[in-house]
Amino acid sequence: MPGEARAPVDAGRYTSRVMSYNAWFQCINGCTGQYSLREVIYRCPSCGDLLEVQHDVEALRSRSAAAWMQLFDERYRRNAYPYGSGVWGKKEWVVPFIDNENIVSTYEGSSNLLWADRYGKQLHVEDLWVKQCGNSHTGSFKDLGMTVLVSVVKQMIADGTPIDAVACASSGDTSAALAAYCAAAGIPAVVLLPRNKVSIAQLVQPLANGALVLSLDTDFDGCMAIVQEITKERRIYLANSMNSLRIEGQKTAAIEIVQQFDWEVPDWVVIPGGNLGNVHALGQGFAMMQELGLIQRLPRICLAQAERANPLYRAYQDHWRFEPITAQPTLAMSIQIGNPVSVKRAIRTLQRMNGVVEQASEQELADEAARADRTGMFNCPHTGVALAALRKLVERKVIRSHERVVVISTAHGLKFADQKAAYHMGGLEGVQRPAYKNAPVELPPDAGQVARAIARHVERAQLMVP
Amino acid sequence: MPGEARAPVDAGRYTSRVMSYNAWFQCINGCTGQYSLREVIYRCPSCGDLLEVQHDVEALRSRSAAAWMQLFDERYRRNAYPYGSGVWGKKEWVVPFIDNENIVSTYEGSSNLLWADRYGKQLHVEDLWVKQCGNSHTGSFKDLGMTVLVSVVKQMIADGTPIDAVACASSGDTSAALAAYCAAAGIPAVVLLPRNKVSIAQLVQPLANGALVLSLDTDFDGCMAIVQEITKERRIYLANSMNSLRIEGQKTAAIEIVQQFDWEVPDWVVIPGGNLGNVHALGQGFAMMQELGLIQRLPRICLAQAERANPLYRAYQDHWRFEPITAQPTLAMSIQIGNPVSVKRAIRTLQRMNGVVEQASEQELADEAARADRTGMFNCPHTGVALAALRKLVERKVIRSHERVVVISTAHGLKFADQKAAYHMGGLEGVQRPAYKNAPVELPPDAGQVARAIARHVERAQLMVP
Repeated sequence: MPGEARAPVDAGRYTSRVMSYNAWFQCINGCTGQYSLREVIYRCPSCGDLLEVQHDVEALRSRSAAAWMQLFDERYRRNAYPYGSGVWGKKEWVVPFIDNENIVSTYEGSSNLLWADRYGKQLHVEDLWVKQCGNSHTGSFKDLGMTVLVSVVKQMIADGTPIDAVACASSGDTSAALAAYCAAAGIPAVVLLPRNKVSIAQLVQPLANGALVLSLDTDFDGCMAIVQEITKERRIYLANSMNSLRIEGQKTAAIEIVQQFDWEVPDWVVIPGGNLGNVHALGQGFAMMQELGLIQRLPRICLAQAERANPLYRAYQDHWRFEPITAQPTLAMSIQIGNPVSVKRAIRTLQRMNGVVEQASEQELADEAARADRTGMFNCPHTGVALAALRKLVERKVIRSHERVVVISTAHGLKFADQKAAYHMGGLEGVQRPAYKNAPVELPPDAGQVARAIARHVERAQLMVP
Repeated sequence: MPGEARAPVDAGRYTSRVMSYNAWFQCINGCTGQYSLREVIYRCPSCGDLLEVQHDVEALRSRSAAAWMQLFDERYRRNAYPYGSGVWGKKEWVVPFIDNENIVSTYEGSSNLLWADRYGKQLHVEDLWVKQCGNSHTGSFKDLGMTVLVSVVKQMIADGTPIDAVACASSGDTSAALAAYCAAAGIPAVVLLPRNKVSIAQLVQPLANGALVLSLDTDFDGCMAIVQEITKERRIYLANSMNSLRIEGQKTAAIEIVQQFDWEVPDWVVIPGGNLGNVHALGQGFAMMQELGLIQRLPRICLAQAERANPLYRAYQDHWRFEPITAQPTLAMSIQIGNPVSVKRAIRTLQRMNGVVEQASEQELADEAARADRTGMFNCPHTGVALAALRKLVERKVIRSHERVVVISTAHGLKFADQKAAYHMGGLEGVQRPAYKNAPVELPPDAGQVARAIARHVERAQLMVP
């Protein structure tokens, strides 16, 4: 498996006691029954709702909060495989039972918690940070969850479970992460996509990583129906987000944020949401830290939705009464979801964490991403949704200027180069007047004219400080 | 400035003695004269050749090798700004004099040293590692050098030097990194490009980061001539690679590789080369470690060139007699250079490190990148050149199967999504029969047909192990 340097380090001190921890699937609605994480099961056999991973918290309490923090800090970004990974450095809290040789890791996590100095000054929130989860092997936060899912599959295969392939219906980051981790593990990956409805950029990662990419003459819901049908045959393992293993990896982002602040809790976390698994994961990470005494309070959460795909925003406006909608196409394409898989878990998380839901129009999300880019970032449109929501909450004084705020950036802007180019060069759908447009200036090859253009640019920049 | 968490940490233990170290520019040909790194100077006033940064090695010797390693390990990826950056964790070896508040950092470096397990098995070099330098803020290794250059400029401005903007002629990674770091610092950036000769993907990063992008009616050499002309006016600072500050950041990749192996030196480092600054930087990093006693031996280096831009390969075949050539267009577009700026320094590095030069055709570089992608990577075409060179050296038994090899991956494949898509979907120039092509399979939305397609894929995969 891939990973950081595996130089000869005595890993004994890291692994002791791991075997005494335990975790299992159970129903999110409290139906009785516990299921092994090694079992091929995605839904509660009683009620049909989702399962979630439950940890033996009492066993985890055998180590003190201070000892956990010390252990996590000792492992953080170090060379002992796989503990240098931001996910596997918290292995006991994630999936304790996996043999290290079955872990498929690309050194996920530990992504930059970027201090948004200039952007924060413009917004009058100077303690503003952007967690760059897209700065990763496949370019999105999905790596955090996929390393867990594919590692569990590798363990299952090693244990003799007959699994032929791992499959998902996805037109974006999930398929890219699935294909890469499966390629590293040597496990066949299958991606189902609606024909003629995905871009070259969405296709290229799973193709390059050798996945079987099936282009079906249907829409996305049709692909989902078929992947659920074929994964009833248990030799094809399902990687879509009704599989809750990925949550266990994604929740480490919450732990890592607190760790990067030397175990201080921020006041707010702003996160974009579509299927809503990620906000639930964030909540799980904070809840687990609180339960085990690493933190004493929870941050508030702002869940940010695109106005064109805003069922949770509507529910929030209506005392959390949720109704599915038909989501409209949005530039924030990964969150164009009208009936989120994880809506129940997300509402519980938001209620527990005094959360709010905000929304952003196409114009707002594109402009806000571009405004942040002008201060040195290069974020995906989903991060643009989060940043636009943040601005609204600051303007309404829900978020106050002295508070410490972390925005989750979910993917690298390089995945959206065409969209960003359209914003700056003209012609981006849904955006009439791009407020932060920056087009190339055409000039003859004349040093004098170049110098004068630079002088004008410098003059304008001096007017725009900070 | 951006950076990782700046939680309240007592940084005193990190900063003591920093002020006693010193570094300066001097001529690479040994002309007399030392110039401050804060001076606006790019070439030797006597002979006109390049300058390089020289460190006061005697002062650095006041700390033992063991103490340096301990210091670097203590800082590595931690929260005390800016020392968690892979570059600034080695600040005394890079640019000792900068005030920390003038450092412009995006937590560069500490990129994954990926164990290429499956790919290495296929190649029969099982101790094979790929340093993923493209897993960074702007997606290429250029961040390592640009954080240094822009930080020095910020320091110069703080010290009262009148600098209005930083400029470069570049159609690729350099302009992206320059624009991002300048945007973070609030310093105007200027990028000169040949009109109609760059792709949207090459334009989008500097545009988004608010650089003044001047599209000139000339070719790349014409842009270079103009940027050199306008930077004679010392208020416009030159960021192209004749500026040797960037080398000081790039050399930390060498130190980091050794650090990631718990201070063991690999047997080989394979690196792609065009302008040849990066191989020189790598050599500088290793030389400095050896000089200060952190390592006792040097690795061998393989410099890999595209066959269509191979002046150093030709020189290597001819007892290092170098002649500039006219480079032909290549998929590895960043190294399409016929007259490399750093050729003298690179030849010295290769001679000192028992280096070899190898080349790769268009077909070879594209196929080899695709072959590696099949095992979970997603590398740029320049990395494809390096991997193809590696394969040739292994086949010729210059590199032996028991040796530890590190390949430098210079940029993230997401910067080359169109090229990769063309490889897999057909129509990539210079590549007749893509050996690792993987196109989507079109099917009706029928679970039975999907299941049969998966069964065939699984069967083929089982034949291809590892």
